[in-house]
Amino acid sequence: MTDISPLASPFPVLPDIGGVTRRVARAGYKNWGRCDLTYVELAEGTTVAGVTTKNVCCSTEVEICRDGIAGGKARALVVNAGNANAFTGYRGREAVEQIMSQVAAHLGCAPQEVFVSSTGVIGVPLPKDKARDGLSAAFEAEPCSWQAAAETIGTTDTFAKGATASAMIGGTKVSLSGIIKGSGMIAPDMATMLGYIFTDAAIAPALLQQMLDEANVRSFSCITVDGDTSTSDTVLVFATGAAGNTMLTSMDSPGADAFQAALTDICTQLAQLVVKDGEGAQKFIEIDVTGAAGDESARRIGLSIANSPLVKTAIAGEDANWGRVVMAVGKAGEPADRDKLAISFGTTKVAANGFPVEGYDEAPVAAHLKGQHIRIGVDLGLGSGRATVWTCDLTHGYISINADYRS
Amino acid sequence: MTDISPLASPFPVLPDIGGVTRRVARAGYKNWGRCDLTYVELAEGTTVAGVTTKNVCCSTEVEICRDGIAGGKARALVVNAGNANAFTGYRGREAVEQIMSQVAAHLGCAPQEVFVSSTGVIGVPLPKDKARDGLSAAFEAEPCSWQAAAETIGTTDTFAKGATASAMIGGTKVSLSGIIKGSGMIAPDMATMLGYIFTDAAIAPALLQQMLDEANVRSFSCITVDGDTSTSDTVLVFATGAAGNTMLTSMDSPGADAFQAALTDICTQLAQLVVKDGEGAQKFIEIDVTGAAGDESARRIGLSIANSPLVKTAIAGEDANWGRVVMAVGKAGEPADRDKLAISFGTTKVAANGFPVEGYDEAPVAAHLKGQHIRIGVDLGLGSGRATVWTCDLTHGYISINADYRS
Repeated sequence: MTDISPLASPFPVLPDIGGVTRRVARAGYKNWGRCDLTYVELAEGTTVAGVTTKNVCCSTEVEICRDGIAGGKARALVVNAGNANAFTGYRGREAVEQIMSQVAAHLGCAPQEVFVSSTGVIGVPLPKDKARDGLSAAFEAEPCSWQAAAETIGTTDTFAKGATASAMIGGTKVSLSGIIKGSGMIAPDMATMLGYIFTDAAIAPALLQQMLDEANVRSFSCITVDGDTSTSDTVLVFATGAAGNTMLTSMDSPGADAFQAALTDICTQLAQLVVKDGEGAQKFIEIDVTGAAGDESARRIGLSIANSPLVKTAIAGEDANWGRVVMAVGKAGEPADRDKLAISFGTTKVAANGFPVEGYDEAPVAAHLKGQHIRIGVDLGLGSGRATVWTCDLTHGYISINADYRS
Repeated sequence: MTDISPLASPFPVLPDIGGVTRRVARAGYKNWGRCDLTYVELAEGTTVAGVTTKNVCCSTEVEICRDGIAGGKARALVVNAGNANAFTGYRGREAVEQIMSQVAAHLGCAPQEVFVSSTGVIGVPLPKDKARDGLSAAFEAEPCSWQAAAETIGTTDTFAKGATASAMIGGTKVSLSGIIKGSGMIAPDMATMLGYIFTDAAIAPALLQQMLDEANVRSFSCITVDGDTSTSDTVLVFATGAAGNTMLTSMDSPGADAFQAALTDICTQLAQLVVKDGEGAQKFIEIDVTGAAGDESARRIGLSIANSPLVKTAIAGEDANWGRVVMAVGKAGEPADRDKLAISFGTTKVAANGFPVEGYDEAPVAAHLKGQHIRIGVDLGLGSGRATVWTCDLTHGYISINADYRS
């Protein structure tokens, strides 16, 4: 339907993760020729952590997923593409519970250890017969590549997205491989962000959750395409323990810091890939906020800029419009002093101390704005709070995708 | 530069207000042939109230204006068009203080009784010589019509905006006439909303402020074009007392309720006119939220819907996409229960009790969405909180105005 994003990158080589087996099948949730059901089997003893959408009108999958995360144990993941099963009431819930039971019977595990996600059309209950037959086919399928799984969880994505990272825990190397889908929100395919990270490290679930929360606040919580929030957004991390390291139980465990860094790294890579597939995106925008009252204040100011339609259209127009940045800083509702603000595009300062920098060199600014990777720097001059957020520009492509369409 | 909004209406007949004399002049803030300085003289004894932008990076004019509002007395208003004088540091402040002194000397009043607003280019100090000469010319000019004043305060507006209302206080009829400018935010002309309402009623300043706050929360605080907030937004109400009513001093005063209703009415009319001049607007959208936990909760949910790019593009595409409305309700962060939500377009309910209404008649919905005045109804099924908010659709026109432009 849409062309591949100009910001797309080729799918990387991801290491296999011990204890993780991927399979895909055709459930036929939509009338299409592609695989649309992803089934990932996880070794016994796998721990899990997760973060889910804050949207209070969340899907049944998200509600059930939260219960599973609280349990801390996982044996399987099922991802349905083409039907979000959101806003479908008890009929949608029955379909999810059927999938959990079917996998539990197949593996001999508890239903609560089976995680289910769905994206696609909303308001239509997931067809139970298609889910059942698709899952049976997946049980029999050959294991598949990371890329095949990444393609199968995708809906309106214009390219498959994956990332990897690694860390040393004691003398043991542990690996992380992750896949993600999402490209903003497109109805009826609300292009929910669904991300899955798999590691062979052994990590206690409470610590894994703590680490994911920490990584999330610096990655997925720092991206925005249009400020809208899907009813189904979910990121899960599964730790199989196959690498054989001594189980990490607290941030004081040797190697915990290294794993935290690797987890934050892979989450950041995956988050940025979603932005790079933003609807209509022509430019990737990085906003570095420094000198804020605190880190959270810096993040909020960054997102206020990143969500401003006027800033996003200015970047689309390759216009160094610092006035719109000032406006977006001011409307964030966070501590800011107009007369201490400094704003830069690329590496060139264009405003400082509440006044435009007279006679700044416009040539490097213009050259920077013609590129695909734009950097906006904002220094508040108040404290040591800092954050980096990522977004994309707002173009005619966004309007075309979202308005020139009839359901 | 841009065509007249398809949602524009002709300038109405506004009654003259005793104690209010309007004049316009050419200060030449930009290289254009039009008047760009509006000077309004107010009778002695005029009281004033005002609301200003919450943007913490506000302009000098807004800072000084707040001091004047606290004083409660007004003798004159000066509005500069073509230069916002925002982000101009002490040089901008000197220009405002010069204007206040010049008017104060002319009228023999205190500088604090002179109110100054400016909109237009930011980052350039208001030229003091042009302001001085323009103001001198205005002192000598013939009084002008409401429409001439409305046109002169405008910048990127595509049509002049005015409204009127009236009320009985005791046996005395009092009138209100108001003008407003604003059409979203366009850089470098950040198309700030500046609104001025004049009445011949006699009202104590503290009560006038209380009434304006109450009207504001149901009018200007219920509109959005793109969710961005100007650094200069200001609405002022001036009460000359020329009608001769017994001064209102509290909401218990006879006629206070009637005046409150009239003030809310004129504020609502003026607020809606700004939305109807929204950048690229093709459709006016009214969102009625009922059944919320409280009125403020309803207003926040309404604005979450009104600010959602996905809802606004869906309306542009004449698509009854209730899924995007559910999403926007859920992301508001206010109490909501997915399974109690009901959503309607026009008068047709399309979703209820957490599920699409099966077999609803799509013909009246499609017909409604083809019109220029769209109504979205959301009932949360929780309480008795309600609010109505107004916005416009998000179209290619918005992108063209804001991105296909270079500063």
